[in-house]
Amino acid sequence: MSSDPGMPEARPPVVILSTPQLAENIGAVARVMANFGLSELRLVNPRDGWPQDRAWASASGANWPLEGATVFERVEDAIADLQLVYATTARPRELQLPILTPRQAAGELSSAAGEGLRTGLLFGGERAGLETADVALCSAVVTIPIDPKFRSLNLAQAVALNAYEWRMTVTDAPPPNFREGAPPADGAAMLGLFGHLERELEESGFFHPPEKTPNMVQNLRAMLSRARFTDQEVRTLRGVITALSRGRGKVLEKIAGRKTGEDEG
Amino acid sequence: MSSDPGMPEARPPVVILSTPQLAENIGAVARVMANFGLSELRLVNPRDGWPQDRAWASASGANWPLEGATVFERVEDAIADLQLVYATTARPRELQLPILTPRQAAGELSSAAGEGLRTGLLFGGERAGLETADVALCSAVVTIPIDPKFRSLNLAQAVALNAYEWRMTVTDAPPPNFREGAPPADGAAMLGLFGHLERELEESGFFHPPEKTPNMVQNLRAMLSRARFTDQEVRTLRGVITALSRGRGKVLEKIAGRKTGEDEG
Repeated sequence: MSSDPGMPEARPPVVILSTPQLAENIGAVARVMANFGLSELRLVNPRDGWPQDRAWASASGANWPLEGATVFERVEDAIADLQLVYATTARPRELQLPILTPRQAAGELSSAAGEGLRTGLLFGGERAGLETADVALCSAVVTIPIDPKFRSLNLAQAVALNAYEWRMTVTDAPPPNFREGAPPADGAAMLGLFGHLERELEESGFFHPPEKTPNMVQNLRAMLSRARFTDQEVRTLRGVITALSRGRGKVLEKIAGRKTGEDEG
Repeated sequence: MSSDPGMPEARPPVVILSTPQLAENIGAVARVMANFGLSELRLVNPRDGWPQDRAWASASGANWPLEGATVFERVEDAIADLQLVYATTARPRELQLPILTPRQAAGELSSAAGEGLRTGLLFGGERAGLETADVALCSAVVTIPIDPKFRSLNLAQAVALNAYEWRMTVTDAPPPNFREGAPPADGAAMLGLFGHLERELEESGFFHPPEKTPNMVQNLRAMLSRARFTDQEVRTLRGVITALSRGRGKVLEKIAGRKTGEDEG
């Protein structure tokens, strides 16, 4: 996510909706665009005109793609200033165009944007999808790997998946495997934990028959190692061991006291 | 997508919605599940009860996840038979759990499912998200790489992205390669372990001050969940807890016998 100061940040693709029907869906599209850092929305021939209050109502506060949305009569006009546009459609087309997954498409759009190209993703309306003539204006087709048994994908979902894939290409690194400031404890800390546990188990009679002790010890160590405990967690576990074994002392004293008639507890 | 006839197909993760509010969103979740080949839906404590007509109305014909949906009172019950459950949440948590992208999570869930494990993805309700105590029951957290400037992600979108990533792993068909040896214990076995440990710790006075108990419990649960113990390991740990807290019967009898002058051992 850090950007090289010498490089302009790659500009996200423009989202172009061709003949969208429901204003609610346009709002939902704005919302997912905002979720993944896209902001430029273009509408081609929206069925109910534009603007529509219902779009704002369903955008959950992602108003800026709606405020900035521009309206066109034809796809040709909406993509006129863009240098690389991909058409998102689930339908097989006779057109000889490369078919990409959203992941492949995002990678290519991201590379192009990184070189300063203006990119776009074209989506069809809810009912009719994209006209073949409009797909033919694009450099490739993006097909979401949907289950052929249930193809009815919501428009905002289609935008979301592509926007998500875009964002995956621009976020630098996968998230760290553990929370910051909490690396796994070192070997000495783990050995301290093992020694503590094993002493208490020994005292409690856990290891029997005795010849099995080495195996039991090593299994316990492996399963605890696997969790990669932090230092804090090692301290917590040592507290657990102390609490449990001190509890044993009390129980023992109670039992012994009961039997002998004394009460040392 | 071709399946080896000698291999059972990897069973998709169960989708668990904790305290979902709007039936429309449950329907939208069913729709995206169907889009990407998921079918098993579980609802924990749905706000407006279940079933709800509005869910069917918004599923666009993806009725089977709704027809088959099961309802639970607690997350514990909903995951009891699952062996690997990941929690989807955008919130930073104090819990020490691995943080995965949906892509990484899908890869791991897919590998686990390929080996016959029962897997699940846990999602929080629209307003409140997941309780930390519920996240602590999971082996890892899945965080969608959302733009920090606009975090309001629709529930069905969150499910869609994870379902999409699942489907990407099965259409790409990577070889199953989760972990050698025995599978992780299921949720019920882990809850048995937690209950046993917590009862003994309670008795030993470990939880103090008392108001910190819920936090301490959930930290312990998270660190133990992370290790993905097998059934055998859960039994071993329960033996460890028993030994530490009570000692083995023979030791007790011996000590008691010594004090009273009898020898029953």
